[in-house]
Amino acid sequence: MQFELTTEYLDDLRQSIETKNADRLLLQLQELYAPDIAEIINQLRDSEAAYIYELLDEDTAPNVLLELDDDKRERLLATFSSKQIAEQLDNMDSDDAADVISELPESIQEEVLSHIEDIEQASDIAELINYDEGTAGSLMAKELVSVYGFETVNACIEEIRKQADNVDVMYAVYVVDNNEKLIGMLSLKKLIISHPLARIEEIHEPDLQFVKTSTTSEEVAEIMQKYDLVVLPVVDQLGRLVGRITIDDVVDVIRETADENIQRMSGISDDVDSNDRLWRLSRARIPWLLVGMCGGIVGSRIIGTYEEQIKIHPEMAYFIPLIGAMGGNVGVQSSAIIVQGLANNTLLGDQISSKLLKELGVGFINGIICSLLICGYAFVIEDWKLATTVSLALFTVILCASFLGTFVPLTMNRFKINPALATGPFVTTLNDIIGITIYFIMGRLLYTLF
Amino acid sequence: MQFELTTEYLDDLRQSIETKNADRLLLQLQELYAPDIAEIINQLRDSEAAYIYELLDEDTAPNVLLELDDDKRERLLATFSSKQIAEQLDNMDSDDAADVISELPESIQEEVLSHIEDIEQASDIAELINYDEGTAGSLMAKELVSVYGFETVNACIEEIRKQADNVDVMYAVYVVDNNEKLIGMLSLKKLIISHPLARIEEIHEPDLQFVKTSTTSEEVAEIMQKYDLVVLPVVDQLGRLVGRITIDDVVDVIRETADENIQRMSGISDDVDSNDRLWRLSRARIPWLLVGMCGGIVGSRIIGTYEEQIKIHPEMAYFIPLIGAMGGNVGVQSSAIIVQGLANNTLLGDQISSKLLKELGVGFINGIICSLLICGYAFVIEDWKLATTVSLALFTVILCASFLGTFVPLTMNRFKINPALATGPFVTTLNDIIGITIYFIMGRLLYTLF
Repeated sequence: MQFELTTEYLDDLRQSIETKNADRLLLQLQELYAPDIAEIINQLRDSEAAYIYELLDEDTAPNVLLELDDDKRERLLATFSSKQIAEQLDNMDSDDAADVISELPESIQEEVLSHIEDIEQASDIAELINYDEGTAGSLMAKELVSVYGFETVNACIEEIRKQADNVDVMYAVYVVDNNEKLIGMLSLKKLIISHPLARIEEIHEPDLQFVKTSTTSEEVAEIMQKYDLVVLPVVDQLGRLVGRITIDDVVDVIRETADENIQRMSGISDDVDSNDRLWRLSRARIPWLLVGMCGGIVGSRIIGTYEEQIKIHPEMAYFIPLIGAMGGNVGVQSSAIIVQGLANNTLLGDQISSKLLKELGVGFINGIICSLLICGYAFVIEDWKLATTVSLALFTVILCASFLGTFVPLTMNRFKINPALATGPFVTTLNDIIGITIYFIMGRLLYTLF
Repeated sequence: MQFELTTEYLDDLRQSIETKNADRLLLQLQELYAPDIAEIINQLRDSEAAYIYELLDEDTAPNVLLELDDDKRERLLATFSSKQIAEQLDNMDSDDAADVISELPESIQEEVLSHIEDIEQASDIAELINYDEGTAGSLMAKELVSVYGFETVNACIEEIRKQADNVDVMYAVYVVDNNEKLIGMLSLKKLIISHPLARIEEIHEPDLQFVKTSTTSEEVAEIMQKYDLVVLPVVDQLGRLVGRITIDDVVDVIRETADENIQRMSGISDDVDSNDRLWRLSRARIPWLLVGMCGGIVGSRIIGTYEEQIKIHPEMAYFIPLIGAMGGNVGVQSSAIIVQGLANNTLLGDQISSKLLKELGVGFINGIICSLLICGYAFVIEDWKLATTVSLALFTVILCASFLGTFVPLTMNRFKINPALATGPFVTTLNDIIGITIYFIMGRLLYTLF
């Protein structure tokens, strides 16, 4: 039932484009929804994309535009005149239109706005693009239905008939007082089942969640998730109703945040996806590789100071990778748990010390298990000195890595740095260096003592 | 505006519990919503939790129960009689009630069901618990409003008045034919603004997305996200309307999937959070640590075969950590991009070879940059032989790691194994071993040749 894009389908479509067979092409796209068509256009060359887009009817086209990848949309719009862009924006919800227009070069934003026919839409968009990215103001749409508390159900339904033209899906009717201040809401269900002459004030729900235009997107996402909301009203500094945020926009915020965290954890510093250009992909990855390389160089200097020892006991070198890898693995495990706890708000801000203790407890248990196993192995294969060195070092490294894996992200979070950054190459590199240092110090100690 | 839980607040609350001061406690909880109270109870001891829960009114209590952590809920319910549990379930939506009851031991499920007073609710729950976890059937709720196509708007509003009692929030009215088969929907907005004598068939929207009870949760999440849906109807094998899924349940699926992916990437094999018990946390992490340790042991055996060489050229050992770490870092970067592409469906199934080529391209660029830098460094610090060995090995390792980081998750995905599993310790360990092998082979080659 769901559309699945295959290369055969794409090839077939391309053939219609090449032969300029518009009828066949429209037939091929007939059954599809806007997000499906956007998925197809994302995979096409720019000239092919422009050809398909031109054929779409005026209801479908703006929705397709919205669902395109950012850079695809940018390149497509670059081929449009200001007037053509304005036509697309005229049929969009105000929040979507504002998103599109704010991606355009500033020089032509004003020109596009001046070409929008619906004056109210133009002024809504002009208001929305002023809010800072990452705030409730930038997420909200202006389309909503509101009624005054003193009105009756009948008058309210009349009002809805008038206002509803602008609103695609209506989840709730907001109730405001004489000064446009939000005082409550009314579910459509309540409206339908109430007596036509009942006054809104008598049947409205005064207790509702709302946010200010300056509330951050993350907080909006948190509130909507926690309280299972589908729509959330937004008020200005004076408490006046200015817009509403719907859950679909917030789902995007949630997914983007999760994606970003995974990328930071993997040492990718820019927001990229696998369809991006080669050079962008390379550039996004090189910074953390260089950090890793600096770590490796520091490691090499440390090992270098034990040159004489390695000459006499080359078996010391055997377990360098094991010590380094285990420090990295344990560090990543610990920090992932903490980063997740922070993201899901299951950690209280003042519980740092108890979390550290717990992670050290886990490190202790796993450290004991791993070092006993490696001690047995090294004793059988090599000798007791190496076995003692490796297992003691491994135990200390696991404890250290547990500590750092907990401490680093918690500290970064306190200083308002994204803790996911700490979970990837940073913790791994740090643990690599510390692990090797511990290993060689212990090795020298044991070999010189006995 | 949003409730923030602090240790001071908790201490204050605990004092009320200890002194059994119910009035003060209720005053402290008065302003809070169910999810906030659940957040508090999650942090309390079981006896404290039971004391608070008993004080809650019958509207709030079931909602609090739903929002609790799974193990907290399990322990709380264990102190209840079957009849008490049934009372809680009576006031829940059918899908939530089914979730709770399916967590109970099977032996008492039937007993609880028999105590539910509302027969329809009991039979709905009994139906829902039969669907497999991870399917649309297990996500859906039975509460929905449906009307026949031949009815008029007026009759339909009358019908909604009757049915609406069971439905908390109503997003849409579904339209079915005489055989209960889903034929379309009607937005409440349309219903309000249409003529009272219009027939539903004339104004309904026949074109709508729906899923079967057997559709997977992931597919449900994908469809709802892609098409920006707030509610999605579910039909049985015969196309008859049997339930509906709302976006808030899907938001949970999205978040849980993201969380799970992060945990798999970090080498944590079980679904844990930082509030779990020590032993559970340890057990979830030890498997991948053991895999990492086996990798380390293999690495030690490989280095062991080059013992003589290390004795003569101990400087070979210096760069072991660098080679291992860089292989790991590059591998994780590549696989993270692929795993994300797979999760977001931006990869076509048949594009494996082009993705491999692209990743190799990125590896090539970053490999060149890194190896030139390390070559310069090693030449200045050591000599040209070591510089050549390290830089050639590093370049090869980065290329290999790019290849494996792309190939492994794509292959795992093809065999229906969660590719995120490949992104963590598995790729790191594999690249560690391969990196060291390449490094020593090249080293021996160069040192014996020149």
